[in-house]
Amino acid sequence: MLVQKYRDMLSGKSVIRQLSEFAAARGQEIGYENVFDYSLGNPSVPVPQAFTDAMVEMLQKEETSVLHGYSPSLGITSVREAIAASLEKRFGLPYRKEHIFMASGAAGALAHAFRLVTEPGDEVLTFAPFFPEYTPYVNLSGALLKVVPPDTETFQIHFEKLEEMLTEKVMAVLVNTPNNPSGVVYSAETLKRLADLLRDKSAQFGHDIYLISDEPYREIVFEGAEAPCVSAFYDNTIMCYSFSKSLSLPGERIGYVAVNPGCKDAETMIQMCGQISRGIGHNCPPSIIQLAVAKVLELTADLSVYETNRNLIYKELTELGFQCVKPGGTFYIFPKALEEDSVAFCQKALKYDLILVPADTFGAPGYFRMAYCIDRQKVERSLPALRKFVKETY
Amino acid sequence: MLVQKYRDMLSGKSVIRQLSEFAAARGQEIGYENVFDYSLGNPSVPVPQAFTDAMVEMLQKEETSVLHGYSPSLGITSVREAIAASLEKRFGLPYRKEHIFMASGAAGALAHAFRLVTEPGDEVLTFAPFFPEYTPYVNLSGALLKVVPPDTETFQIHFEKLEEMLTEKVMAVLVNTPNNPSGVVYSAETLKRLADLLRDKSAQFGHDIYLISDEPYREIVFEGAEAPCVSAFYDNTIMCYSFSKSLSLPGERIGYVAVNPGCKDAETMIQMCGQISRGIGHNCPPSIIQLAVAKVLELTADLSVYETNRNLIYKELTELGFQCVKPGGTFYIFPKALEEDSVAFCQKALKYDLILVPADTFGAPGYFRMAYCIDRQKVERSLPALRKFVKETY
Repeated sequence: MLVQKYRDMLSGKSVIRQLSEFAAARGQEIGYENVFDYSLGNPSVPVPQAFTDAMVEMLQKEETSVLHGYSPSLGITSVREAIAASLEKRFGLPYRKEHIFMASGAAGALAHAFRLVTEPGDEVLTFAPFFPEYTPYVNLSGALLKVVPPDTETFQIHFEKLEEMLTEKVMAVLVNTPNNPSGVVYSAETLKRLADLLRDKSAQFGHDIYLISDEPYREIVFEGAEAPCVSAFYDNTIMCYSFSKSLSLPGERIGYVAVNPGCKDAETMIQMCGQISRGIGHNCPPSIIQLAVAKVLELTADLSVYETNRNLIYKELTELGFQCVKPGGTFYIFPKALEEDSVAFCQKALKYDLILVPADTFGAPGYFRMAYCIDRQKVERSLPALRKFVKETY
Repeated sequence: MLVQKYRDMLSGKSVIRQLSEFAAARGQEIGYENVFDYSLGNPSVPVPQAFTDAMVEMLQKEETSVLHGYSPSLGITSVREAIAASLEKRFGLPYRKEHIFMASGAAGALAHAFRLVTEPGDEVLTFAPFFPEYTPYVNLSGALLKVVPPDTETFQIHFEKLEEMLTEKVMAVLVNTPNNPSGVVYSAETLKRLADLLRDKSAQFGHDIYLISDEPYREIVFEGAEAPCVSAFYDNTIMCYSFSKSLSLPGERIGYVAVNPGCKDAETMIQMCGQISRGIGHNCPPSIIQLAVAKVLELTADLSVYETNRNLIYKELTELGFQCVKPGGTFYIFPKALEEDSVAFCQKALKYDLILVPADTFGAPGYFRMAYCIDRQKVERSLPALRKFVKETY
């Protein structure tokens, strides 16, 4: 007998995927360059040449038994050391290899984080708008995801709602800053207030509440700013990082868990990740990819196009009268639709070959997401279509 | 609060890992070339040059957004097609891409297989001697692993014991042929008898019993033989394959699930694997590795040294009076120790710098495992030490 819960999931098709498939099909008709596809968060800029060079050099020089051999269960030691040193240098926290666990992208890192600190039935809180995959990620681990409604003025945290929902059952709070889908970067003030609240509630409930920080967009911050480091505000932070967006490597499944050195069980938690792996068939990200990213830790792909695109789109949207928080990072923007039903709104946009994603599954009905990780030229060509759509429809 | 079950696992150190660490430490003292380390099943032969060439060529020629981009959730379509075609050609079953799911090695494949067909509390049977990692693999999925005692005469299946244990609670039977640790290849007769029994019991219980076939050693079979294909005997077979041993790529985490096309829900099961992935943070093996193995599907590393080593060791062991089933494949041999307590036996062997693994955790106390995936020269140099150990001790 096949397990019904997975069979049932087959009928619930992802809206993003459906739209992306529509875009591909429409591309067959009119040429994909004429479809203004803002559906998918797939990095558009090339991988740094230094990464490719590092891969080729290792393939040509290293003994294959070393290059492709088993990695230790927590990851390759030299790679963990390099990541810890890089985090220490950048964020000023005393990370050591003992705080680093190599994981298959952010999804792999999160899978370990949830299992570290939640038993079946425990609650994990996150904040709308949120990445819809968090729902299966958390719920299939046995815990229960609950979503704090958004503060739509700022897309920072709605603290009144959070306080209502932060009960004794909550073992972890999941944040994602810079945020998919809003593009908003949590301010230092937001993170400080969150940390203070979690410390208070941990004391009140007599158990630690962990902060799980999903940070794949950490390097994509605009106007030369840095996103405030979540871990710097709260000791019990489990950082989940992915190189997918910073190095344009989403298919290579490489990231890590970094437990804040100030967390009292930090080293034990990393050891526990190695045990969790055995149950979920994880067994480390690929050896050669671990070794290659360690050689380019201080680099990113050329991420500047995302800021250019943000500027173009934000200007156009505000001129057209959209209510929209200006993104501080990522490659997403999250405006309010021009009618209450954002599904209907996005449906109407399709006639103009604009692929916009309604935000119901992101926990913010009435809004929509545009993923602008596409060519600048295409963004420029899309703006007249956007204008035409709005003028003719609303 | 950290989850206690994972914390508790930290105290149970793997015997194999402890011995391997001992061997490394001893190597520091006397030179690792003088430590006869038979502890780890880590392939010793080089990766085929064609794999390395394929990797380099793709890195030099392909656009990075294609090469390193997201793979579809079931794996890259062309890779699944190539694997299906290769399986069809080799085993004569009508595999199509719809029956193939790309997974992170056999561990990843098994993680999906257990979750496909078992609910918490369901039983999975396997046969001693068995790979000890099966215990956390199954039990952390929520199901319960039960081990059928060995037929120590042949290390084929002990059918009387199996029939006793094959109750209504059993949803899957897990086989591993060629077998780690015994080196034995299940005969066609064994597989036919197993399939007949599972069909009978499925009918009797009114639910399907799935056969999960873990096949990382499929290509390592001696004397020009082929291991009988498990799937060919039983429609409800979930094949779990890894390229780790055949291509000497254990660190790159690449394998697949192949559901027998004759299984009535085969295509649904593969789709369900994509849903299971979301809960365990899997999201496909690395794109570049998927593409590279698809180019060398008909190749293996030069595996002949394993047969040479088997011949050397088997001859020596039998001359020394060990009771030992002759391995038909893999790079393991599994003799009976010369005293009842195989832990004590292996402890005494350490004085001769022989690293042998006692088989208690393999479900066959009184036996020990030698992993002979090492240089032939080292095997030859180890034989006098083995002889000396036996003569002086027993």
